[in-house]
Amino acid sequence: MNYNFSNRMSNIKGSAIREIFKYAADPSVISLAGGNPAPELFPNEELSVIAEEMLREKPVLSLQYGITEGYTPLRDKVKQRLKRIENIGTDDDELIIISGGQQGIELSIKVLVNEGDTVIVEEPSFIGATNAFRSYGVHLAGVPVEEDGMNIDALEKVIKENKNVRIIYTIPTFQNPMGVTMSVEKRKKLYETAKKNGIIILEDNPYGELTFDGTKVPTIKSMDTDGIVIYAGSFSKILSPGLRIGYLCANKNLIQKIVIAKQVSDVHTSMLPQLLAYEYMERYDLDGAVVKMRENYSHKCSTMLNAVGEYFPKDVLYTKPNGGLFMWCDLGHNLDTMEISKKAIEQKVVYVPGNTFMTDMNKPCSTLRLNYSTMTDERIVEGIRRLGKVFCNL
Amino acid sequence: MNYNFSNRMSNIKGSAIREIFKYAADPSVISLAGGNPAPELFPNEELSVIAEEMLREKPVLSLQYGITEGYTPLRDKVKQRLKRIENIGTDDDELIIISGGQQGIELSIKVLVNEGDTVIVEEPSFIGATNAFRSYGVHLAGVPVEEDGMNIDALEKVIKENKNVRIIYTIPTFQNPMGVTMSVEKRKKLYETAKKNGIIILEDNPYGELTFDGTKVPTIKSMDTDGIVIYAGSFSKILSPGLRIGYLCANKNLIQKIVIAKQVSDVHTSMLPQLLAYEYMERYDLDGAVVKMRENYSHKCSTMLNAVGEYFPKDVLYTKPNGGLFMWCDLGHNLDTMEISKKAIEQKVVYVPGNTFMTDMNKPCSTLRLNYSTMTDERIVEGIRRLGKVFCNL
Repeated sequence: MNYNFSNRMSNIKGSAIREIFKYAADPSVISLAGGNPAPELFPNEELSVIAEEMLREKPVLSLQYGITEGYTPLRDKVKQRLKRIENIGTDDDELIIISGGQQGIELSIKVLVNEGDTVIVEEPSFIGATNAFRSYGVHLAGVPVEEDGMNIDALEKVIKENKNVRIIYTIPTFQNPMGVTMSVEKRKKLYETAKKNGIIILEDNPYGELTFDGTKVPTIKSMDTDGIVIYAGSFSKILSPGLRIGYLCANKNLIQKIVIAKQVSDVHTSMLPQLLAYEYMERYDLDGAVVKMRENYSHKCSTMLNAVGEYFPKDVLYTKPNGGLFMWCDLGHNLDTMEISKKAIEQKVVYVPGNTFMTDMNKPCSTLRLNYSTMTDERIVEGIRRLGKVFCNL
Repeated sequence: MNYNFSNRMSNIKGSAIREIFKYAADPSVISLAGGNPAPELFPNEELSVIAEEMLREKPVLSLQYGITEGYTPLRDKVKQRLKRIENIGTDDDELIIISGGQQGIELSIKVLVNEGDTVIVEEPSFIGATNAFRSYGVHLAGVPVEEDGMNIDALEKVIKENKNVRIIYTIPTFQNPMGVTMSVEKRKKLYETAKKNGIIILEDNPYGELTFDGTKVPTIKSMDTDGIVIYAGSFSKILSPGLRIGYLCANKNLIQKIVIAKQVSDVHTSMLPQLLAYEYMERYDLDGAVVKMRENYSHKCSTMLNAVGEYFPKDVLYTKPNGGLFMWCDLGHNLDTMEISKKAIEQKVVYVPGNTFMTDMNKPCSTLRLNYSTMTDERIVEGIRRLGKVFCNL
């Protein structure tokens, strides 16, 4: 039978980088293509003790249906923590626990954007987000990202040129895929521009805590006096991605609608992972664990940057992240990194080609994303050495 | 700020029965309104041991990102079990693990139905499904349910009278909310009707295993030689709803699209609950546990039926379920069970009024749903006694 798929889903294909990830599963291949947090940092012993205890002592709480908004003590704890570390949350705000940050993107689109409406994304941007937008038949408009974040002049132009702009999606801090951070000035300008035009900002901040030197730029949500920012947070990079726990904080009228959307989507987020996140924060020092993550990623990032300096052609441009999991390179010379990835695979190293993160994925790009979070120093250096060999022989 | 919500979400409101569930939280109130499985049947000790071991010994598997399709050993095990107990699964079929049965409904609509298209539902039907359809701006068309399932003549009429009918949604076995089961003859006719008209059947079967006397009617999916049936199954009623583990089995081309939709929805289902479901089936006797559930629910259902016979007015019509969690009553006399629920609350007993399950929720109904799965015999009898008092004094 030939199935008639919905219009919204007709244009979205399986990720072109699936092929690349297939190779990444081969242990002889060094993958710089991933986005996973470092598994050695998972507090699995602690979570093991908690899980055993919760299931044994609180069977109904752990195994029965829960409420859509999320486990109340976890919601309260996340609210307190958000207020303390990001100065987020007013009396008009509410918070919902979701099944990972990705669900926050999908629910926001579903309640706010009609098919054919425009969503503005950074160019490049996180493919999980751009594909979520595509899956609702949304028109994507890209705004170039610079070393200090979105080009605000370009943003204003894009708003003027597009109809029904409903959401500006941004990862302002340690952006995926570029690893850059939007300046405070640009955050303020972005906020004012969105406000002036009646557009909602979806601020996605999964990496914000992973600052290498401890400095933090204020979140856009912390400036939100008008209830126009939806803030998406996640435990994926600071506790565990496999648990699938995230949260949205926004004006309570927005959250109310998002709760209805979540109810018909998955009823509620799995209870046991919610209990693990809550009890872990209650019993252990999450902030201390985050400090260790920062050191770990900072070290790995330096290792990669040093190797890039040594092995890549001298005219390759690259970002120098202050946090997060990714760096971004531009080979220039109108090269096509999708084509070059085949040569890289021959050398047993993989990366994600830049076109993957663009609004038009079919246009060749000279850029690529590198990830440093999951490997040993030796693998990072060897991976960059192999890539350098490919890039020097083009 | 006044938010402009998407058209699809504009018409969907928070459930009217939320008020009723608020009262249900009061321990002096007897709730016949729920849909929860019996908590005394949760194998929490077994799951506690498994969770402790998984997190301790398999930290990466438990806590790192997984693949969207689901944990492969769990998928294989569910496939084997489905084949064995329901004769479901051909070489053309594939199976995906989802975050509870509800997600299977949402994903199916998302990939198959455009806004304004028609979805046919049983009248009455599960509100989680009807609300999911509403949340995509779908036109709902109802087909009356009889003691032996959907009225097939009415179905054919509804198909003729509506444009772009894309899905027929059915809970053929121990239907929610009526507790009735579609006959084999009607299943065959439904299948042929759908096939003739190029319509996909979404067969939702969360209660199918909970047959009181062990007899089973063949699933519609087991008759699916044309790849037109999407089968939604769930661990919510046979293991735990709080874990949020379900699955969809359908033609592989459909599943392929559904995988893409799931990827942008929540990336993958939480790993630890998947591991618990798999290891529980691997180490313990799920089929044996299901037999105990059947006995438990069969006993509770009899208790309720006996009490209804004793305390309800003699002209009240009601279904006599052979399985599942629900029974359905019709008070007749053009009574409005939504209005009457206020009197029931005064008597400290709650139920779900029938209009909740209808395509037009604003039209008064003389019907109501009763649930018997979560209470002791004493509470069931006392709840029905209180309700009987209300109904006898109208």
